[in-house]
Amino acid sequence: MWKIFSFSLMPCKTLLQTRASLTVQETENVTDFRTKVSRNPKMEMLRCNYLFPEISAREAQHLKKYPNAEVISLGIGDTTEPLPDIVASSMANYAYKLATPAGYRGYGAEQGSKELRKRISETLYKDMGIKDTEVFISDGAQCDISRLQLLFGANMSIAVQDPTFPAYVDSGVIIGQTGDVEKESGSYQKIEYMTCGPQNSFFPDLSKTARTDIIFFCNPNNPTGHAASWQQLERLVQFAQENGSIIVYDAAYAVYITEGRPRSIYEIPGARKVAIEVSSFSKIVGFTGVRLGWTVVPEELLYSNGFPVIKDFNRIVCTCFNGASRIAQAGGLTALSPEGFKAVLSLADYYKENAEILLETFRLLGLRAYGGINAPYLWVHFPGSNSWDVFNEILEKTHIITVPGSGFGPAGKEFIRVTAFGHREKILEASKRLRRLLS
Amino acid sequence: MWKIFSFSLMPCKTLLQTRASLTVQETENVTDFRTKVSRNPKMEMLRCNYLFPEISAREAQHLKKYPNAEVISLGIGDTTEPLPDIVASSMANYAYKLATPAGYRGYGAEQGSKELRKRISETLYKDMGIKDTEVFISDGAQCDISRLQLLFGANMSIAVQDPTFPAYVDSGVIIGQTGDVEKESGSYQKIEYMTCGPQNSFFPDLSKTARTDIIFFCNPNNPTGHAASWQQLERLVQFAQENGSIIVYDAAYAVYITEGRPRSIYEIPGARKVAIEVSSFSKIVGFTGVRLGWTVVPEELLYSNGFPVIKDFNRIVCTCFNGASRIAQAGGLTALSPEGFKAVLSLADYYKENAEILLETFRLLGLRAYGGINAPYLWVHFPGSNSWDVFNEILEKTHIITVPGSGFGPAGKEFIRVTAFGHREKILEASKRLRRLLS
Repeated sequence: MWKIFSFSLMPCKTLLQTRASLTVQETENVTDFRTKVSRNPKMEMLRCNYLFPEISAREAQHLKKYPNAEVISLGIGDTTEPLPDIVASSMANYAYKLATPAGYRGYGAEQGSKELRKRISETLYKDMGIKDTEVFISDGAQCDISRLQLLFGANMSIAVQDPTFPAYVDSGVIIGQTGDVEKESGSYQKIEYMTCGPQNSFFPDLSKTARTDIIFFCNPNNPTGHAASWQQLERLVQFAQENGSIIVYDAAYAVYITEGRPRSIYEIPGARKVAIEVSSFSKIVGFTGVRLGWTVVPEELLYSNGFPVIKDFNRIVCTCFNGASRIAQAGGLTALSPEGFKAVLSLADYYKENAEILLETFRLLGLRAYGGINAPYLWVHFPGSNSWDVFNEILEKTHIITVPGSGFGPAGKEFIRVTAFGHREKILEASKRLRRLLS
Repeated sequence: MWKIFSFSLMPCKTLLQTRASLTVQETENVTDFRTKVSRNPKMEMLRCNYLFPEISAREAQHLKKYPNAEVISLGIGDTTEPLPDIVASSMANYAYKLATPAGYRGYGAEQGSKELRKRISETLYKDMGIKDTEVFISDGAQCDISRLQLLFGANMSIAVQDPTFPAYVDSGVIIGQTGDVEKESGSYQKIEYMTCGPQNSFFPDLSKTARTDIIFFCNPNNPTGHAASWQQLERLVQFAQENGSIIVYDAAYAVYITEGRPRSIYEIPGARKVAIEVSSFSKIVGFTGVRLGWTVVPEELLYSNGFPVIKDFNRIVCTCFNGASRIAQAGGLTALSPEGFKAVLSLADYYKENAEILLETFRLLGLRAYGGINAPYLWVHFPGSNSWDVFNEILEKTHIITVPGSGFGPAGKEFIRVTAFGHREKILEASKRLRRLLS
């Protein structure tokens, strides 16, 4: 059923031209005046467009072609279910009070409210020895990844899982940590790509991994949906200790971990000395549009000269950020109350039931789908195919948006990512359309 | 009355020690393990602590010494008056609706909602030819300044007003645009400081200003409170055109301009080809804790190779940011409605009346105070004194927090900044305490 494409990455130039015409109007005829400011060469090195805006652009193109198509998006991992009442009400009440002399508040601490930092440390890091002062509230994990890159600077060597969420690599390119891009694979020189696939149970072979200063590790992994076992994470922490590396552990999807596996890196002994944890309320409680996250930097994490990383991160947060919205913080506080967290878990269950439906669908199609159990993502294998072609074919035949695996790194070239975020009826309809391809 | 101090900047080391003990517990005894990761040398180059956290630390010290003191803060420029009802209600309603299937929204566009971008372009940039697609919604001006620095990168030469808001210089240090700090003055090599003081009516002498790639220009200036005249801004735009420079125009306080002076750089012909404008809802409507701002990047603004700056900025926004909170955006939209904007202007009037009271107070004290007419800041001159000493003396004698001028650049060494943000009764009480020093 699936066309087997010979592997060939779409050349970057073509993509760039498409994108340019879609995002910003061509300006060449508007003016002849140019400043004498050189374009930042790091920006020039960025591979094509950022993945998700590119997909949105393709969706828009598709809708031009099929104006009446009912497109279902299993693409960007965006929450679809309403917020728990209790969470929305707490934000609404907070907002109302801002119109009263007693309830008005101006600037908050750049690091976030004491109360929320405390609640995160006490609920999500219970028994892990994380202090409230080690928790920094952010406006989301992606934003803090950039701030961490500002903290680290251009001279750091970095490792990333391959495949992985593109923000680590892209922000690394912008800050200057990478070499040239290799046109064939789309990978950057000077980045250590830690291949994760079915062949190694989606955990990198650390014996073949070169030492780097920073190891970005997304767990459960986006896009593969794999959650590391205790033994795997212990090996990672040990690897970092032996190499004197810093792990940046992205736990944005930790709440979806079903099987008895670690959710936080700090469940692993010794992690406080080698790991930063980045996380988010986005996928926990549907705050993708509300914007709230956090980053933990333990006091024991030291640079080679003994200087605590937390002090520099604090400086970055105070200089380059000005705190998350107080209204969002009020919502986060409620989401981590006993009642709020019950609602949070039932939201996660809903999306995981979606994942089960989709897993069964791909099984029926005779395709290998990974993930979907400890994460709201499925990672579907199309051996021998090119993922952008698969993306296009699925879109053309079913009006379903997915994400081409190559957007997550060279090892994703034969995969597509399918999100389990979605209204149940849309998931069922998508399942029906996909199964129809069989008949 | 005012002790005349011989000029001597407090050495950086002393400050650093003070700060360290106030922010993060010393960790030296906790662990012997150090990673092999070198501290980012750019972070090491940062001068002491970021200004405002340092002032908060001093306030905390003061309160330890005088636990019963009623400290009045005329320090950090933080709004104190409740939000207009209509603005708070719109945010509350938006938050409530997020708990309903019809009202729930996930990720918004990284660039902000179409509706808000359109309203900003149509209300604040009416007749200036700014399109909605050139307006990027942010979580505040300070955050976008860092993102602009990411956009520009390490190889840019920059100019700043002296004195000016510290975020431009500090983010420039972090990104690598500056040379070493000169210990005597606290200024950085490779930055062009454009001195602004009473001697040049607070507008830089451009005939003596070296060409740089980027010119950060805060107008009305924070801290001096000076708003440039038409002629002055025209000269600035012409200077940028002649030099092929990019102006980053920070208009965060533009709503306070009373006299017939330009509020936006785009009121000056030709500015679209040389200027980016950064702005914020913080001081407009009291959103310091709600977090909302915007940045305008015109399509005609081109790098020397003809590439539009807007395309790279769009990429930065998509990669390093994920949109401002939708709830805050709902509030911003209402603040710019006809009814909302009426409330906005009456808030600005309230703070400007505060400024008048304070201007009169300093006049009675025989001190020269600048600003306060087109901006919510007063810039008070203490000839021959060191501003941190003046800060300490005022705090000690009146329990009033100000901001030492040297925190804004070498030219601020004999000044303190006084904010007009505050409840009226606090401003009156502060005025009384200051006048008491005379008697």
